[in-house]
Amino acid sequence: MAAPFNREPALLNFDFYNPTQILFGKGQIAAITPLIPAGARVMMLYGGGSIKRNGVYDEVKAALGGHAVVEFPGIEPNPQYETLMKAVEIVKAERIDFLLAVGGGSVIDGTKFIAAAALFGDADPWLILEKGGRNIAAALPFGSVLTLPATGSEMNSASVITRAATQEKRPFANRLVFPKFSVLDPSTTFTLPLRQVGNGVVDAFVHVMEQYMTHPVNAPVQDRWAEGLLLTLIEEGPKTLSEPDNLDVRANIMWTATMALNGVIGVGVPQDWSTHMIGHELTALYHLDHAQTLAVVLPGMLTVRREAKRAKLLQYAARVWGLVEGDEDGRIDAAIERTRAFFEQMGVKTRLSGYGLDAGAIDAVVNRLEAHKLVKLGEHRDVDAAASRAALQLSL
Amino acid sequence: MAAPFNREPALLNFDFYNPTQILFGKGQIAAITPLIPAGARVMMLYGGGSIKRNGVYDEVKAALGGHAVVEFPGIEPNPQYETLMKAVEIVKAERIDFLLAVGGGSVIDGTKFIAAAALFGDADPWLILEKGGRNIAAALPFGSVLTLPATGSEMNSASVITRAATQEKRPFANRLVFPKFSVLDPSTTFTLPLRQVGNGVVDAFVHVMEQYMTHPVNAPVQDRWAEGLLLTLIEEGPKTLSEPDNLDVRANIMWTATMALNGVIGVGVPQDWSTHMIGHELTALYHLDHAQTLAVVLPGMLTVRREAKRAKLLQYAARVWGLVEGDEDGRIDAAIERTRAFFEQMGVKTRLSGYGLDAGAIDAVVNRLEAHKLVKLGEHRDVDAAASRAALQLSL
Repeated sequence: MAAPFNREPALLNFDFYNPTQILFGKGQIAAITPLIPAGARVMMLYGGGSIKRNGVYDEVKAALGGHAVVEFPGIEPNPQYETLMKAVEIVKAERIDFLLAVGGGSVIDGTKFIAAAALFGDADPWLILEKGGRNIAAALPFGSVLTLPATGSEMNSASVITRAATQEKRPFANRLVFPKFSVLDPSTTFTLPLRQVGNGVVDAFVHVMEQYMTHPVNAPVQDRWAEGLLLTLIEEGPKTLSEPDNLDVRANIMWTATMALNGVIGVGVPQDWSTHMIGHELTALYHLDHAQTLAVVLPGMLTVRREAKRAKLLQYAARVWGLVEGDEDGRIDAAIERTRAFFEQMGVKTRLSGYGLDAGAIDAVVNRLEAHKLVKLGEHRDVDAAASRAALQLSL
Repeated sequence: MAAPFNREPALLNFDFYNPTQILFGKGQIAAITPLIPAGARVMMLYGGGSIKRNGVYDEVKAALGGHAVVEFPGIEPNPQYETLMKAVEIVKAERIDFLLAVGGGSVIDGTKFIAAAALFGDADPWLILEKGGRNIAAALPFGSVLTLPATGSEMNSASVITRAATQEKRPFANRLVFPKFSVLDPSTTFTLPLRQVGNGVVDAFVHVMEQYMTHPVNAPVQDRWAEGLLLTLIEEGPKTLSEPDNLDVRANIMWTATMALNGVIGVGVPQDWSTHMIGHELTALYHLDHAQTLAVVLPGMLTVRREAKRAKLLQYAARVWGLVEGDEDGRIDAAIERTRAFFEQMGVKTRLSGYGLDAGAIDAVVNRLEAHKLVKLGEHRDVDAAASRAALQLSL
């Protein structure tokens, strides 16, 4: 990023930009009609077909009434390069000029890749992943209708794509792949399986932690906004399980997940993201859900790196968990334990054994981190293979 | 706005959009060069010339090196229609196609009006104010270099213009007048007079209160984010006076003021704005600074409307001022008193007598509110002339 101000620790310089229009609330799918360019040939992308059972498909088709629409179903969780390239071929053949993603983060992430790959010329689109998206020069415009609050993809310019052939899971980002608009209708989430609801809450929680749980840089707005999201997830998350028909609860979870990763809480502050990078390897190797990997990695990671994160862990203990009594290490231990318990409360197991994995999985993950040169992770670039191993061993 | 979800109180549907790019930090003025279209003929607008004494003028001119630049100095506090129309004439005569506002909220507000008025065709541009901006169909692109954190105009699509001839102060808003970019370099604020620093903190505080202090609608993220901004202003605001050379403090105040009115804390929640509407009349009649009028009106307004705002006043007392002991009305009174004391601590007087005004001013303001049909103000449209009078009488 940029140089700090006059001394350390201090807020870093930053460049914030987020042009995605958000249409929030029950019934808002119908509002997309005027947002799609007149005469556009539209590709509607979705996943396994749950939208046909909960009415979203019909609502979207009605809103697209005036347009030629080609459907591309079958974008899987952890969207695969191989699948997405089939969509790119159809986009070119059908002269599609607007994409509409209908689903969760995987469908939106996949649509971002398609938008860029369709205008990538004759070069191999895998290069987009190899360069992290820095080589994107143009992208098709697209919108999204979000049905699963979790990843924040609906209001950011990042994406993660998996190549099945090589078990690689790679992120990319570029300001050309912000959605033009995203519909957040919380009533669309009522039919989600509880596993996905729990995963989404954990995913959003860890997104906040990756941006918040580093070291203080005198950024009180960013800190308090991050804490506000964590507190909301802790209060409202369990209600999605105990009061699954409560629309207010669904609305608050949906908005929190979007705000967790639209960039605003991360401006000017150091960021970690080591839990995500290690988690990606667990998903690629053993097909755990993304949120499951985060729930496994984060508690151990906080424990292993408690010295570098001490000041922020104490702030987190006090402001998020109300832990202000006892000695410092006791408060830190309790805060990490509360975090693990919260993930379990949301139905997401936090130990490898819960997913049928043992120490052999740790060896495999660490080997892949080394092979992928992911051995300088975290806000201080000091999370090496040994630290990753130690973190995972605490969650056996 | 839109219908509430399934019952009252509940979050309202909303449409959020904010495409302004923010370049934040020391030295960021130089970063605007690539953001101004190649070949653009630029008008650089500013106020009384303080930017020539603190180096900002030279930094901006250097960043504009490759462009033809016409300067338009002299945009006054509470920017006047008459002044701005002179700029519109020059924009047309000189075929200007990009505007750059360098200054505080008045310069940026004025630039928004010029951007819209320059492309308003043959119609009278005052109609923009009469229609609140709904009749804007095009606007020149513009950016801003902010030198006074206060109004939030640098990251929103609203503006307030005064017509000197008739003492009218009118707001307008339109998504076509978002700045393309805004530079927030907190080091530019070191040379501000303390009166303007204090005014800015009070202005930002009341912006948050207008969006927060209504009634609960089960919007925990919006509430906590608003409270996070208020707490930051309370902590950091006095440091701008006691540690005027502290860049971190300036940075946090600058970011807080921008976040206070960029729309994000106000989504889906009821909003008040009665304090602003009454304050505008005080400024138009007696030329008080905008923030001075807010500091006079808000405490009385909270007192007069304590029943409709009771739940939120208690939440504010507890979360912002730590007032949790004693009976409800005592906590509410104490929270309002702390608010008044904070404004005074920032050097902004909260009583009409502090500005040499007496009960005659109240009569004059109420007469104007009635003349302007501003007698159904506030989130319940129940702030009539009598309520406005009662609020002002508490700040004699």
